[in-house]
Amino acid sequence: MREAARHVSNWGRWGGRDQLGTLNHITPAALIAAAGLVRVGKSISLSIPLDSYGPQGASGYRRNPVHLMSLDGGDEDLGPRLGNPAGSTEQHLVEVLRGPLRFNDDFIMMPLQAATQWDALAHVYYEGRLYNGYPADSVTSFGATEAGIDAVAARGQVVGRGVLLDIARHRGVDQLEPLALVEPDELEAVAAAQGVSVGTGDILVVRTGWWQNFLDTRDPQWGAKSPGVSWRCAAWLHERGVAAIASDNLAVESNFKEFPGIHLPFHLLAIRDMGMMLGEIWDLEELGRDCHADGVYEFMLTAQPLLITGAVGSPVNPVALK
Amino acid sequence: MREAARHVSNWGRWGGRDQLGTLNHITPAALIAAAGLVRVGKSISLSIPLDSYGPQGASGYRRNPVHLMSLDGGDEDLGPRLGNPAGSTEQHLVEVLRGPLRFNDDFIMMPLQAATQWDALAHVYYEGRLYNGYPADSVTSFGATEAGIDAVAARGQVVGRGVLLDIARHRGVDQLEPLALVEPDELEAVAAAQGVSVGTGDILVVRTGWWQNFLDTRDPQWGAKSPGVSWRCAAWLHERGVAAIASDNLAVESNFKEFPGIHLPFHLLAIRDMGMMLGEIWDLEELGRDCHADGVYEFMLTAQPLLITGAVGSPVNPVALK
Amino acid sequence: MREAARHVSNWGRWGGRDQLGTLNHITPAALIAAAGLVRVGKSISLSIPLDSYGPQGASGYRRNPVHLMSLDGGDEDLGPRLGNPAGSTEQHLVEVLRGPLRFNDDFIMMPLQAATQWDALAHVYYEGRLYNGYPADSVTSFGATEAGIDAVAARGQVVGRGVLLDIARHRGVDQLEPLALVEPDELEAVAAAQGVSVGTGDILVVRTGWWQNFLDTRDPQWGAKSPGVSWRCAAWLHERGVAAIASDNLAVESNFKEFPGIHLPFHLLAIRDMGMMLGEIWDLEELGRDCHADGVYEFMLTAQPLLITGAVGSPVNPVALK
Amino acid sequence: MREAARHVSNWGRWGGRDQLGTLNHITPAALIAAAGLVRVGKSISLSIPLDSYGPQGASGYRRNPVHLMSLDGGDEDLGPRLGNPAGSTEQHLVEVLRGPLRFNDDFIMMPLQAATQWDALAHVYYEGRLYNGYPADSVTSFGATEAGIDAVAARGQVVGRGVLLDIARHRGVDQLEPLALVEPDELEAVAAAQGVSVGTGDILVVRTGWWQNFLDTRDPQWGAKSPGVSWRCAAWLHERGVAAIASDNLAVESNFKEFPGIHLPFHLLAIRDMGMMLGEIWDLEELGRDCHADGVYEFMLTAQPLLITGAVGSPVNPVALK
Repeated sequence: MREAARHVSNWGRWGGRDQLGTLNHITPAALIAAAGLVRVGKSISLSIPLDSYGPQGASGYRRNPVHLMSLDGGDEDLGPRLGNPAGSTEQHLVEVLRGPLRFNDDFIMMPLQAATQWDALAHVYYEGRLYNGYPADSVTSFGATEAGIDAVAARGQVVGRGVLLDIARHRGVDQLEPLALVEPDELEAVAAAQGVSVGTGDILVVRTGWWQNFLDTRDPQWGAKSPGVSWRCAAWLHERGVAAIASDNLAVESNFKEFPGIHLPFHLLAIRDMGMMLGEIWDLEELGRDCHADGVYEFMLTAQPLLITGAVGSPVNPVALK
Repeated sequence: MREAARHVSNWGRWGGRDQLGTLNHITPAALIAAAGLVRVGKSISLSIPLDSYGPQGASGYRRNPVHLMSLDGGDEDLGPRLGNPAGSTEQHLVEVLRGPLRFNDDFIMMPLQAATQWDALAHVYYEGRLYNGYPADSVTSFGATEAGIDAVAARGQVVGRGVLLDIARHRGVDQLEPLALVEPDELEAVAAAQGVSVGTGDILVVRTGWWQNFLDTRDPQWGAKSPGVSWRCAAWLHERGVAAIASDNLAVESNFKEFPGIHLPFHLLAIRDMGMMLGEIWDLEELGRDCHADGVYEFMLTAQPLLITGAVGSPVNPVALK
Repeated sequence: MREAARHVSNWGRWGGRDQLGTLNHITPAALIAAAGLVRVGKSISLSIPLDSYGPQGASGYRRNPVHLMSLDGGDEDLGPRLGNPAGSTEQHLVEVLRGPLRFNDDFIMMPLQAATQWDALAHVYYEGRLYNGYPADSVTSFGATEAGIDAVAARGQVVGRGVLLDIARHRGVDQLEPLALVEPDELEAVAAAQGVSVGTGDILVVRTGWWQNFLDTRDPQWGAKSPGVSWRCAAWLHERGVAAIASDNLAVESNFKEFPGIHLPFHLLAIRDMGMMLGEIWDLEELGRDCHADGVYEFMLTAQPLLITGAVGSPVNPVALK
Repeated sequence: MREAARHVSNWGRWGGRDQLGTLNHITPAALIAAAGLVRVGKSISLSIPLDSYGPQGASGYRRNPVHLMSLDGGDEDLGPRLGNPAGSTEQHLVEVLRGPLRFNDDFIMMPLQAATQWDALAHVYYEGRLYNGYPADSVTSFGATEAGIDAVAARGQVVGRGVLLDIARHRGVDQLEPLALVEPDELEAVAAAQGVSVGTGDILVVRTGWWQNFLDTRDPQWGAKSPGVSWRCAAWLHERGVAAIASDNLAVESNFKEFPGIHLPFHLLAIRDMGMMLGEIWDLEELGRDCHADGVYEFMLTAQPLLITGAVGSPVNPVALK
């Protein structure tokens, strides 16, 4: 692991103040080339629905989103109910509602990583250091001051060439086995079979079929049994200059314990050493079918996180454009 | 107003079950053409920061986002503090933290329209009907069942040719006067002066400079004094087949009271009669400077809302690609 | 049912504008008498812990509370991390943290009825009318304007003589069977066996042992299988002038379907017709042991809801004083 | 200050694992005596309304509560709108709504110290130590593991003899001057003038009139200009064995800077050295009038915090019983 960490490390590669990590591989030329992949004018969303039926459980720091209406269709004749109101908002509403305008409004409460999302570079670390050597205590209760999602979002950086490697289809299954590992040679083999290359500045999208497993089972242990990439894929991604990786499981990587006592080794290498964002809980079913149908496994991928100050992750609606 | 409403109405135009409204103008051909505008490989985010210093006040149904860390850098040595824990999450963490992995995690609570955002078609209505004739009571406390932001997000539809009309720069000011009105002939004049056309399937982006007014003043009455487009612009947009409109103020339209007793007349016409989404509280300062510098006021615009089930609006990180 | 509803109805009994319902039975004399029950100087909390391990599930409008720290012990040396801050809060903190003061702060997000709680009179209704005939649409997205928990909280009204009827112990079991029904004659029998009376102005506390069932099983279907009182108990409570009722299950009443198609018939009679608040998800284990040990099943009970404007329920920390 | 800290310190006084601090002064005998003060059967709530019009601002870690309805009166005929629903909650509701039962439900999001509240002993600290020597890092992102509000709430401990000292009325003003200091000799003088003593186990309630200042001005700087007790009162409280102190301002103590560089010195002494909880933002207007009218400044005070696991404060509805 330590050797792998040294091998893939990008600390300092883009300067001591770099906040973007491997997104730096998405050069202006790469972006222009990516836009050239929009050939038939089709858009495919890769987001699961953000609602109360997502894969999170009833307790702990990850829950399903809570979406509540602050005004809804039942409030069409709200005005008289707000008569003689104390508050300035209610007074304003009473006046507004004397005219024709009616409106609905809403709130959300959610862990930023509850559903389809990006891990920011400040999300994981070890031995007291985040990506690029930033100290762990740069992330306080006020949020990340280094390597947060806001640095990426403010640059509008997450757009480029996306490449789908459909592992499940290549194996001839709807979904991989629980805890299955995807190794670098399988990535190679799938790319070759699909007739697509993975290169510098690409955003790699790996389909395991595991999201469908959640939809089929609604099993709260869904995430804990995720198949996914092996820690050895970090070096493979590094050597190719991949900009980011996303998958349809909980953590991109397999939850199979490859090392005793080390949880999420791919996270450690990818996020902390390489500076690579991970896209998790993406829905790749429609994209998989589409790429299979037309044989084109590359596309322009836009997946901009929200510009949430100091956040260590963000919900996202990734869209593949072909 | 009623005549204007009849003139611009798109009810039934794309079928009785349509959920996309004027986004239907973004055809495959339009999307391909939009991608062709990525010529220099540059991305510019049009989002304000989502944090506690946004333009919302201390009370009412719109507040600034609350971003809280559920785990942060101060928890690096959390394990012993969770010894003999009752809960399954804590037990799992104790085990994880025996190894090297450390991580940060976070939550957000926010009105969906607190910051840079899209209004869904279900956001405003009058006389008991939403866009396309959907009944007002289709929006319950469980959210919108028609014309919600989810219908748009699931299609990945909000990407196309963006056109900036920089009204403030054309008037030679940093920001328009409070409550200033932008009429159709000014839109025409600015487009002509900028050498850009506005046509079918375009997403029109109107710069008033008013976001900078908020940054300068932090005035809680910022929104109430917004300059912006006039209700008469609805017909102009309709005739050109514009797909959506966004601006750097609170409500796209000016808050000047054009009709006694009618609040937000442009909202009523655009959202409810035309089926046009409005993008609000966008930061157009950098884009304005960039377009002025290179003289190119058109770009590929990606602005995908989150796929929040039943939502009537969504935060967004809009990105201009040139 | 309709006859029962007529029989127990208190509409108009305390005036057309009454907001307190059967809490009116707690007269000054009753309150003085209740205070006289504090004889040994002992206090027993009847609250379950409000945290992520409560009885709510992963989806729907009832979830377990989310408690997040906005500042914690990991932020002891936060000051330098907030250097050159943009926000006024951060600037103030930097100044504060130059001195010795350090502090922790926190947030909660929760459904008001997620844990130990009171149902307000505005919580349930039928045929368009709340308690006292208030119209259903008096509860808008802005909250209850009639019969809300705030009317009760502002009066500090929920304090009086509490009486425990320990049904489980009387039956010689730790907990009642799933869906078991407690009928009025059993209430009578238990009171007689315990040597306690239930009279005007009392707050009746019924122990089924079902909270312990949740602790033992963590079964998400816990609530759906609750034993509890029968709808017939409404008349019994009415005739005695009971002020309120609470229990250690989900809904006070048994979830056994007593009438086809009618959910929660006791709720309908008690809350809407009688104007009686229900206390739910109370932990009565320690109280049960204590009353068994000293043979005293009466006590002063304080159980003040929070003064949340327009709320239809409230978390509460009920305390028995003996 | 250091000498004062040594003088008032209660570390170890009630054992090395004590979680209650000066609440230990409320003995069984004190509780019985307190109950004896309920002489006329009157209850007075000391809570401000918990809603969006509270004293918190638009940004920072303290905001006004957000109360949202998850179901309201506008959803009376929700059933058909939920037809063919995907989710289990919606399916259940469709079935329920075929019968007569209708209900309202709600959520709250709030900083635990946004309104009328108790500071837990884990709220403030200095030099790395909380009350009783507990280490600062015992408060993690998962909450306080020592000296939290839950330890107090689980004991039902906050009930006893309350004594109002009405400083404003004694000075002959509606409210004290901004930043005014109340010194120990004034506490003595007011007690003497009121004919009331302050002794062991009492909960002292100090009226400055400052809450009325907020109601009059809605000034966001209200808290920063609070009058209140001086740090010297800590010793006075210590010597008398007072159990807790509450006031109608932001922080019990005056915001006048008594020491350069030391914020909230009374907090440091009271909470961290003495182990005394502070009750803040209480509404003492009605209580003040009532005590003035009957000349009785003592009462039974119940003020139980919620049993929120790991919380460092809690909203409360304090009620005076006379």
